[in-house]
Amino acid sequence: MIIGKVAGSVVSTRKCENLVGNKFMVVEPLPGMKRSGAVVAIDMIGAGIGEYVLVAEGSAARVGCGMEHAPVDAAIVGILDDGQNLR
Amino acid sequence: MIIGKVAGSVVSTRKCENLVGNKFMVVEPLPGMKRSGAVVAIDMIGAGIGEYVLVAEGSAARVGCGMEHAPVDAAIVGILDDGQNLR
Amino acid sequence: MIIGKVAGSVVSTRKCENLVGNKFMVVEPLPGMKRSGAVVAIDMIGAGIGEYVLVAEGSAARVGCGMEHAPVDAAIVGILDDGQNLR
Amino acid sequence: MIIGKVAGSVVSTRKCENLVGNKFMVVEPLPGMKRSGAVVAIDMIGAGIGEYVLVAEGSAARVGCGMEHAPVDAAIVGILDDGQNLR
Amino acid sequence: MIIGKVAGSVVSTRKCENLVGNKFMVVEPLPGMKRSGAVVAIDMIGAGIGEYVLVAEGSAARVGCGMEHAPVDAAIVGILDDGQNLR
Repeated sequence: MIIGKVAGSVVSTRKCENLVGNKFMVVEPLPGMKRSGAVVAIDMIGAGIGEYVLVAEGSAARVGCGMEHAPVDAAIVGILDDGQNLR
Repeated sequence: MIIGKVAGSVVSTRKCENLVGNKFMVVEPLPGMKRSGAVVAIDMIGAGIGEYVLVAEGSAARVGCGMEHAPVDAAIVGILDDGQNLR
Repeated sequence: MIIGKVAGSVVSTRKCENLVGNKFMVVEPLPGMKRSGAVVAIDMIGAGIGEYVLVAEGSAARVGCGMEHAPVDAAIVGILDDGQNLR
Repeated sequence: MIIGKVAGSVVSTRKCENLVGNKFMVVEPLPGMKRSGAVVAIDMIGAGIGEYVLVAEGSAARVGCGMEHAPVDAAIVGILDDGQNLR
Repeated sequence: MIIGKVAGSVVSTRKCENLVGNKFMVVEPLPGMKRSGAVVAIDMIGAGIGEYVLVAEGSAARVGCGMEHAPVDAAIVGILDDGQNLR
């Protein structure tokens, strides 16, 4: 997983049917993470803009979030507690 | 997923049988996305050149788009609504 | 998928049994693709050196090419038609 | 897999239900590894801060660690013995 | 797959049970490959230090090598024949 900050969201009206009802959040990885550019992730938790989150990528986002048959390759799977010394 | 702009398409007549009938779109990721180079993606939605789209990669493109047995590792799964402030 | 040019092939006599009979092609991604270095891909189509091809990576190469139980993570799944304006 | 050094951990109280009970370790890959930025990995072994570990990524972290239905894409699967000449 | 050179091995006594009995080889990708840093791969063939090998990554390493339930994301699946003009 990577740690990132929720930077915003995007709206897609014309999309695959099995994506209907999902929110697409734009997450910016923290500096020093294995990814250096933004990821668009489904939000499983109710994360708000500016919050630090854990993002799972690949089949984990799909199978691990009960969306086996949706074309999802990234998901917010946790919100980090406040007050941690993130690097 | 990543946000990208449809830059064009490519044609392949000699291809795996289970790819017949698909369109191969060349998608350029938006600056600042986790990928910085172009991806060739199957189009599930009917995206046009110049449109901003969501691209799912990996097994999500195959399993999530009902193409479990096709050698597809990227798919356009949504078209972004106009007028959004994309970065 | 990515677009690449077939640069050559490599020979491996000592290999996993379920790889026997496959050709290992070295494919150089086109400049501007999401990958900038060479990939070794199984050839499903009969591509020749110098041809431009589509390469699928990850489980797509294995499951999508009827090689579910072979340790293959990249496959040439299409040959691009001549005369296209590739970038 | 990659070799990395456990740099710390992060706490997430609001997370996917099937992640409850796991520890999220921040692992910094050794210089020269295929990844150059930090990975957040589930700890399957009991690794401590400062220890050198093997991290498996992708579906291996989920399926190979008996967490098939959890959104996990990286796991610490081994602790390296002391006194090895790591590069 | 990628072509790499076996640079050494690492030992992990405390590891996931389903990894017991495997050798962890450190493989350096050839210059110009899609990966530029080292990968730790399970050895399925009996490769020696200094040999040039094919490494499969992702689920291919696990499913394609009969280790479906082990947390393995990279495997040496072939040894290249001597005398090839590798780049």
